[in-house]
Amino acid sequence: MEGISKETLLRLPTYLRTLKELREEGEEYVSSTVIANRLNLSPIQVRKDIAGVSSTAGKPKTGFNVNELIEDMSEFLGFNDSSQAIIVGVGQLGKALMGYGNFKNYGVEIVAGFDTNTEIDFAEENGKPVYNINKLSNIVHRLGVHIGIITVPKENAQEVCDLLIKAGIRAIWNFAPVNLKVPDNIAIKNEDMAASLAVLSKRLSEILKNE
Amino acid sequence: MEGISKETLLRLPTYLRTLKELREEGEEYVSSTVIANRLNLSPIQVRKDIAGVSSTAGKPKTGFNVNELIEDMSEFLGFNDSSQAIIVGVGQLGKALMGYGNFKNYGVEIVAGFDTNTEIDFAEENGKPVYNINKLSNIVHRLGVHIGIITVPKENAQEVCDLLIKAGIRAIWNFAPVNLKVPDNIAIKNEDMAASLAVLSKRLSEILKNE
Repeated sequence: MEGISKETLLRLPTYLRTLKELREEGEEYVSSTVIANRLNLSPIQVRKDIAGVSSTAGKPKTGFNVNELIEDMSEFLGFNDSSQAIIVGVGQLGKALMGYGNFKNYGVEIVAGFDTNTEIDFAEENGKPVYNINKLSNIVHRLGVHIGIITVPKENAQEVCDLLIKAGIRAIWNFAPVNLKVPDNIAIKNEDMAASLAVLSKRLSEILKNE
Repeated sequence: MEGISKETLLRLPTYLRTLKELREEGEEYVSSTVIANRLNLSPIQVRKDIAGVSSTAGKPKTGFNVNELIEDMSEFLGFNDSSQAIIVGVGQLGKALMGYGNFKNYGVEIVAGFDTNTEIDFAEENGKPVYNINKLSNIVHRLGVHIGIITVPKENAQEVCDLLIKAGIRAIWNFAPVNLKVPDNIAIKNEDMAASLAVLSKRLSEILKNE
């Protein structure tokens, strides 16, 4: 179970979401084919991924027990233990992420925001506290938070990243369009929104070309 | 050049960004090793990816011509021809995307927003028009836009998706945490923010466990 690929890991939260949808629809059992169809994957891929994280055996006629699969995947992904996160840069994107309720379902909760706006000493956004950046180190230590989200302009992103690591942050989710340098013992995920849109735009141009 | 993998395609915008950074720093030539180091990739991977989209030959001592590579990659990705996009759901995330200046660098421009708020007939957000959703079909046809971005609650996402396709949209970038059903001739990219954060959280738990 330890050696699953990054690709499988990326698919797991999507399986989990699909399984929860199925449970809401009243399904107690589900086949790999049903999951595969909902996600445009092959049933073989789905069965392989499930086998990597769950010892639940699918029965030939009824399929997998939905509740057992949900339980095993949540356990594997660590979603049963909630992790806290803080966010630096409370602009439009920062506000959007602070207000995004769905993270909770995946075991992560954004507990506070920080901004460089020196006029603000304390504010509130989506019911969560926003502090001046100079309080970062104190509050990260006090709360024991390990995840930091960066939504500042790219010019300030590396500086903020260094500050987060110094304060004790061990995992960084970066939305600034810049390659941040971090030590090996820090987990980092770069979210390049523009690149993502660009890939879609490229696919579109291929579709239009083939018509 | 046609048959590059999805993984390579996903890396290309990042190469392009890095090459533009290098050009801003005054570099005229760059080696695959320098690019690889900035992006935590192997030089072999970088050389292979470049060979897939550019006929520019790297010289043994000086490396690749930065301008030529930028030109070839932009051409391949279609970034020289700007694509227009519209966005449905002008809440916090919608506003954040409308205000995100970086899409332009990747050949995509969000030209208008739509919202179901029936009290609004016309508004403005980040200097761009926001229309009532009932104007969607008219305006998509008039502008000839092919890309639609969905930032509505998941309950409304499929309905909006169907509406977009009916209006002539051919590529959909979906931020609602739900699996949208689209015909085969429509390009779709699901952006599951919570899943992305969950993967980071999982990596963090592995780092902390190994200490």
